[in-house]
Amino acid sequence: VDLASIMEQPEPPVLPSSQNTLSFSSNSAAFLQSYLPSASSASTEKLPFVTLTYASSLDSAISLSPGIQTILSGPESKAMTHYLRSQHSAILIGANTAIADDPGLNCRIDGVGGYGGADLLGQPRPVVVDPHGRWLQTLTKETRVLRTALEGKGRAPIIFTNNNTTIPAAKLALLKEYGGMHVFIGPEDLDQAEGVPTAWEGILKCLASKGLKSVMIEGGGAVINSLLSKRFAPVVNSVIVTIAPVYLGKGGVIVSPDRDDKGKPTARLKDVRWQGLGEDVVMCGRLSP
Amino acid sequence: VDLASIMEQPEPPVLPSSQNTLSFSSNSAAFLQSYLPSASSASTEKLPFVTLTYASSLDSAISLSPGIQTILSGPESKAMTHYLRSQHSAILIGANTAIADDPGLNCRIDGVGGYGGADLLGQPRPVVVDPHGRWLQTLTKETRVLRTALEGKGRAPIIFTNNNTTIPAAKLALLKEYGGMHVFIGPEDLDQAEGVPTAWEGILKCLASKGLKSVMIEGGGAVINSLLSKRFAPVVNSVIVTIAPVYLGKGGVIVSPDRDDKGKPTARLKDVRWQGLGEDVVMCGRLSP
Repeated sequence: VDLASIMEQPEPPVLPSSQNTLSFSSNSAAFLQSYLPSASSASTEKLPFVTLTYASSLDSAISLSPGIQTILSGPESKAMTHYLRSQHSAILIGANTAIADDPGLNCRIDGVGGYGGADLLGQPRPVVVDPHGRWLQTLTKETRVLRTALEGKGRAPIIFTNNNTTIPAAKLALLKEYGGMHVFIGPEDLDQAEGVPTAWEGILKCLASKGLKSVMIEGGGAVINSLLSKRFAPVVNSVIVTIAPVYLGKGGVIVSPDRDDKGKPTARLKDVRWQGLGEDVVMCGRLSP
Repeated sequence: VDLASIMEQPEPPVLPSSQNTLSFSSNSAAFLQSYLPSASSASTEKLPFVTLTYASSLDSAISLSPGIQTILSGPESKAMTHYLRSQHSAILIGANTAIADDPGLNCRIDGVGGYGGADLLGQPRPVVVDPHGRWLQTLTKETRVLRTALEGKGRAPIIFTNNNTTIPAAKLALLKEYGGMHVFIGPEDLDQAEGVPTAWEGILKCLASKGLKSVMIEGGGAVINSLLSKRFAPVVNSVIVTIAPVYLGKGGVIVSPDRDDKGKPTARLKDVRWQGLGEDVVMCGRLSP
């Protein structure tokens, strides 16, 4: 679930941009600083700095059911999400979330490009992991991420598909027209069944090679659970979780990684910090090696 | 899972009581006060004040698997649990937890009876909901709650069983010898299948009739999920949840209530307060009607 879009009501096509602009004070942001990518640290690395972030209920659900947008966290958490986006070169989601939410995948924090700032300053590059091209095949001029790019309020997406997927030329042309990019990736890096990479390193290296030094990974459930697993946790630099004081109840889309060793927790976080934010709490931490 | 016992290593039979005594400063306790039973409010009520409390992982698991004690929360949270016990007349768990954990079900906070205080001052009455007498049938002089009572460090339990259950006379005599109490309750108040009451009101009224004005309900999973359901949430006055920064991973015992309305969250908390406590966070709130 895209943290920003779960808070959003359908919007009229034209709104004064001031109504859309969010602010998050530097005071509020202080607790996040040590969990964010620093320009210096990433420049010599082969992989981008990866921040994994999501909002869940007390019972670790990110939505009521697959494909359903669910309002979980409050307005302060929404502003924080957009602040976090401004601090990353890219934001990444899976195809299921892109299809379900039709998210804008931009940053609406006061002062970035399109929201008081020049050009696309501070606007992260959207990345959609779309192994079988299911989302790419639905792409039209009405797709929100393209509309947002056209309005100068965000960048067009990079889309990763499996290199044995057939993509209609018209969709690729549309994507290119808006400034987006399509990347074929070897099937060894993309799981056939679940739409989740079997090897995140391939995608992350590709992003680094395009000069994207940090990526904020926002969901959905399968993507998050994959990155919390023993296999992939090492590529994650920071984890930022918002918890809302609500129980969605059984049947939701759950964040809970697979457990390799039946008798041991999958992962414990270190350098943990908790911060109340409106009715919610935010946890920042790092995955123990 | 009993919040206290999950932190405990096996102990040598005799330990100076000072090593067992926990303290929780009045400063630390301040954030809890408005969620605790007040002597005045409960005295005119037919039902005791009910506090629901548990410790979970980020993925809402209270243990790695049924019957397995799991270290989740830190020492500060353990001290808080014992402080909370000192503020209630009774503490209640289900039979599965009693069998799995063999918990002491007493309060070890500095100043209560057995831990610096006189007699059993401040020691809550343990209550075990044991529909089919499975725990009662395992009761011996070595059962920890009875040993604790014998040592003058806690009270003997009240055990609720279904009135169509046959209980060996020797077990009832043992329980009585230690100052405990057995209560038969109508099958209409106890679910046959899951060991969870189908009607909590019967048990709670019985506790009130015995002068127990407040009860802290600690687990396990089935008991907690039952009390978070639409049907029973109205009997719960406060919810106090400790969340540890760990992912147990799939396969754990999960806190997540049933959802009656597929399209709506089961419960949203109000008057929410979050408080960091060591590496953990504590959420206090009330269930919305």
